[in-house]
Amino acid sequence: MSNYAKIFEEYMKKQIIYNDPKNLYQPVKYILDSGGKRLRPLIILNACDIFTGNTSNALPAALSLEIFHNFTLAHDDIMDNSLIRRGNKTIHNKWDINTGILSGDVMLIIAYETLNKYDDSKYLLLSKQLTKTSRLVCEGQQEDMDFALKKNVEEDKYFKMIKNKTAVLIGSSFMFAGIVSNLKTKDVKVLYKVGENLGTAFQLEDDFLDCFGDYDKFGKRIGRDILEKKKTLLFINTISKLKSEKKKEFLNIFFSDTMHESDKINSIKTFYEDSGSVIYLKKKVEEFSNTAKKLINTLEIDNEKKLQIIKLSESLLNREV
Amino acid sequence: MSNYAKIFEEYMKKQIIYNDPKNLYQPVKYILDSGGKRLRPLIILNACDIFTGNTSNALPAALSLEIFHNFTLAHDDIMDNSLIRRGNKTIHNKWDINTGILSGDVMLIIAYETLNKYDDSKYLLLSKQLTKTSRLVCEGQQEDMDFALKKNVEEDKYFKMIKNKTAVLIGSSFMFAGIVSNLKTKDVKVLYKVGENLGTAFQLEDDFLDCFGDYDKFGKRIGRDILEKKKTLLFINTISKLKSEKKKEFLNIFFSDTMHESDKINSIKTFYEDSGSVIYLKKKVEEFSNTAKKLINTLEIDNEKKLQIIKLSESLLNREV
Repeated sequence: MSNYAKIFEEYMKKQIIYNDPKNLYQPVKYILDSGGKRLRPLIILNACDIFTGNTSNALPAALSLEIFHNFTLAHDDIMDNSLIRRGNKTIHNKWDINTGILSGDVMLIIAYETLNKYDDSKYLLLSKQLTKTSRLVCEGQQEDMDFALKKNVEEDKYFKMIKNKTAVLIGSSFMFAGIVSNLKTKDVKVLYKVGENLGTAFQLEDDFLDCFGDYDKFGKRIGRDILEKKKTLLFINTISKLKSEKKKEFLNIFFSDTMHESDKINSIKTFYEDSGSVIYLKKKVEEFSNTAKKLINTLEIDNEKKLQIIKLSESLLNREV
Repeated sequence: MSNYAKIFEEYMKKQIIYNDPKNLYQPVKYILDSGGKRLRPLIILNACDIFTGNTSNALPAALSLEIFHNFTLAHDDIMDNSLIRRGNKTIHNKWDINTGILSGDVMLIIAYETLNKYDDSKYLLLSKQLTKTSRLVCEGQQEDMDFALKKNVEEDKYFKMIKNKTAVLIGSSFMFAGIVSNLKTKDVKVLYKVGENLGTAFQLEDDFLDCFGDYDKFGKRIGRDILEKKKTLLFINTISKLKSEKKKEFLNIFFSDTMHESDKINSIKTFYEDSGSVIYLKKKVEEFSNTAKKLINTLEIDNEKKLQIIKLSESLLNREV
């Protein structure tokens, strides 16, 4: 575990001390204790450390977004009927749907409450940004659910969905780091865009790893998106490249409910590779990552700090954090 | 419809203009369009009019708490498995549970967003109070659900539950009116307590009307709490007053699943009356209502305004609004 992760875990443990009513707060502690990458806190702590030389100002902001993220997981897991997360039972699976709903609600509220630790001017910026982000994340979740009922999805709508569902929260993580580090308004806005681009690249990379990753490194079952018939960029791009008969064959396999799971995964992966969609995805990852880098270079901070933020960005995409 | 209600409905219609994704926002519009007493907006508009002579400053605060209230309804209806509200299908009944969860989430977020309309100093006070209230409302809902699994409940725990689940939001309505009317901090705090006491009296009166009300006036099915085996103050107090055999008889009827509905309701109502619990409840309503009146008299405002606030309080309890 990195030093930042250690600092964050210790801080979180001291803050999450609610006990009563226990049926409300036990699930909150359960999901927060169950680990995860702590991606958003790590971004905020690391970036704040780069900007200011220490992490103490970053901690409540980091906790707020981590709790917010876990609110979305608690509710999304009900909506997606996911029974296991991070090797543990999801809240609604361990308890019931009501517990998943109410403990999710209270986490969203605690995400706001945690921001009370800042002075008025920071609270104003952070809480309004949390509201903006939350709204978009809800819209992204709805778009994702709507896609499940469709046969195909336009590429631009897919990018909008992953931006809302994932990238805006990464954008807010970078932005929160800028706010708690007292950066200029102009830089804070640039940081949001940096995170939004990196978040999109991160989600595309996630789609790639879901199909082509190494189970031991990725930590998730490989091929899950294919089995869940997720219309990711790989699917959308493959469809756009295939001609009549080949396209029919691909769609028959993709939407088949009877095919053996590993045969189906392997067959769809071959389509994704042969159609050039994997290369297309990698090119997109590169584009978003490059845009982020260019934006970082426009920040009005020391060159040394810019290099460190670029290093942080690269480590996100290389899954080193 | 009162003039305040008309002003509020017109304002709300102009504000709730979200369209896309439609599966997210249609249920939001549906529940907000489906009426209800608009109790919280009416308190805020009426009180702000008394304090300042007009209602314009009150509108976003009123909308915020009304949307917050509807967030709790959307989620509570799932948790309580309620299929009909205000004569219409509940969201999760008309659509599905996922729609009920996500449209509820976005309403909680919109409740915060609506407060952005105020200047910084008011936004700070209002949004922090919304957080405090939301947290307590979640705790109250959990306590209420916990009670369903118990054979009996202590009276003080019952009062705590209805305070959290209902009264704090009425407290916040009075407090919001004070904040948007630029009242002194001291008076704003008193107003919260006024609303908290009135909210408790209101809920007790609601419990009474659920058993002994007139369907046409109350607008809800009479005896629902009895059929749902709700441990209200009437139940708790009756238990405390009955001796061995009589108590056993009461409990057998109360927890019976086979008795004819109207027989059960009539029988339990007789127990509630004969045990003196109805008189006890009415005494408690009086106590909370008197405390509210005393608090109103400590406000540092004109006597004429005090009288008008007392009139508003009375109209709440007499269900004239």
